[in-house]
Amino acid sequence: MSLELYRTATEFRSAADQARASGRRLALVPTMGALHAGHRALMREAARRSDIVAVTIFVNPTQFGPNEDFDHYPRNLEGDLAVCRDEGVTLVFAPSVREMYPTGECTRVRVKSLAEHLCGASRPGHFDGVTTIVTKLFAVAGPCIAVFGRKDYQQLKVIERMTRDLLLPVHIVGHSTVRESDGLALSSRNAYLSSDERRQALAIPRALSQAVRRFSAAERRASALLGEVDEALANAGLRVDYTSLSDPEELRPLAPDERVSQRALLAVAAFVGATRLIDNVVLGEDPAPIQESH
Amino acid sequence: MSLELYRTATEFRSAADQARASGRRLALVPTMGALHAGHRALMREAARRSDIVAVTIFVNPTQFGPNEDFDHYPRNLEGDLAVCRDEGVTLVFAPSVREMYPTGECTRVRVKSLAEHLCGASRPGHFDGVTTIVTKLFAVAGPCIAVFGRKDYQQLKVIERMTRDLLLPVHIVGHSTVRESDGLALSSRNAYLSSDERRQALAIPRALSQAVRRFSAAERRASALLGEVDEALANAGLRVDYTSLSDPEELRPLAPDERVSQRALLAVAAFVGATRLIDNVVLGEDPAPIQESH
Repeated sequence: MSLELYRTATEFRSAADQARASGRRLALVPTMGALHAGHRALMREAARRSDIVAVTIFVNPTQFGPNEDFDHYPRNLEGDLAVCRDEGVTLVFAPSVREMYPTGECTRVRVKSLAEHLCGASRPGHFDGVTTIVTKLFAVAGPCIAVFGRKDYQQLKVIERMTRDLLLPVHIVGHSTVRESDGLALSSRNAYLSSDERRQALAIPRALSQAVRRFSAAERRASALLGEVDEALANAGLRVDYTSLSDPEELRPLAPDERVSQRALLAVAAFVGATRLIDNVVLGEDPAPIQESH
Repeated sequence: MSLELYRTATEFRSAADQARASGRRLALVPTMGALHAGHRALMREAARRSDIVAVTIFVNPTQFGPNEDFDHYPRNLEGDLAVCRDEGVTLVFAPSVREMYPTGECTRVRVKSLAEHLCGASRPGHFDGVTTIVTKLFAVAGPCIAVFGRKDYQQLKVIERMTRDLLLPVHIVGHSTVRESDGLALSSRNAYLSSDERRQALAIPRALSQAVRRFSAAERRASALLGEVDEALANAGLRVDYTSLSDPEELRPLAPDERVSQRALLAVAAFVGATRLIDNVVLGEDPAPIQESH
């Protein structure tokens, strides 16, 4: 089957309905385009778990704040379609804003608590935009499975909660973060970085790796683990938006005097120049983003 | 096919999936139980438009305010099942609160603007509860069609908007208000009324009928039309929660000095004793609830 591009919800729904007929399992990979190897990994995971993969490409305005990069977010539909074709994707849905928000932003889906920490605190309304658009994409595609990257760890947890709460018949799959060979997490926003900034950004996976090693060496004090991350990022000249150690399911931040009991999400958001990057590891679960050379 | 009662979302979903297999159209009638002839009319409308009718019976706590009648709302599952059986309904879903809110009230679906007027102003959060539960019921049942009564006119409009905004593949059908022979709109809450209150409550359909006749006689001034309704309700000893003339689609209230151009929703909420009743007519569209005797 060759790739088909759909621009309207009606046509995409009809194609997805047809694809699902005779019991075939459809997996959805929602993206904002500017597809990179991280998205390719999501598509492969989707293919491994289903019969048909659908990719959506939509830069969703409601998840951007008024001073964020909606207008400048990289858009490259031809390149994205080539990636999808290369990965054997057969259905691509790339709607207009009007198609996804026919009456404006009248209806919102909101996940409380989980969405209020971390990026939710820095980017008010961001996750409302995410959960609203994902609900719509699920409604149009009717997937059995949807695959999201763990680089956006909080997004993954918020969508898992939303899906469970709204009793949506979709199994949410999280895929581990894909990194460049030097450890930088893949992100469409890496395209904003100058070569100097690109080098500077490495402080993030380095700091996370250091924390993983300190955790492996039995450091359990939240203040000590976080303090070293903060210091490393500051030393590299990054402007920290937040660093946080949190419960990996409920995303409640640990207090500075708390100790990590079993697992903890170590999440970072920092500006490299004007570019905001995020990254994370789950201490007690994920390997270090950068392996020590021996 | 005989009636099957389901208590869990998993079982009901599976039954609905099976019912829909081989292309049969499933219609959903969401109710809070205490089924009366109004609900029967919804079920018949659903049957007329589909192959399989599913009725949900769930007194949804999140649409009740803290001082409202959630605890005392009439519940009569055996009676309700008899009504469903009598109407040829084959699938009934009567879940527990825990089944519908597995993680509490973390995720909410909210329709702005439309939901803020009329009952939305008197009952803060009410429509959030309605849209949240209806989204869940749609997700579990996967209906082609869902039927709601026009007595809850604002609810119907809010659900229509939500369904459109979230691109849910459900056609929303509104069914005209079913009334007792004397004009009182059927409501599960009528069971709360004493026989004196029952007589007193007739002031509502009488006032609406008078407004329909004044409108037919070319009265177009919002203040005049509403003023007579207010006066009639006050004279009957009802405590008015609100009376309103509004745009029938956007539900924006008309200003007192406005004139009704084509159609207008005339909506009433009033307490008869401790019981809050609602009713409405669309002027320029609906007949008078009580026909004049000749």
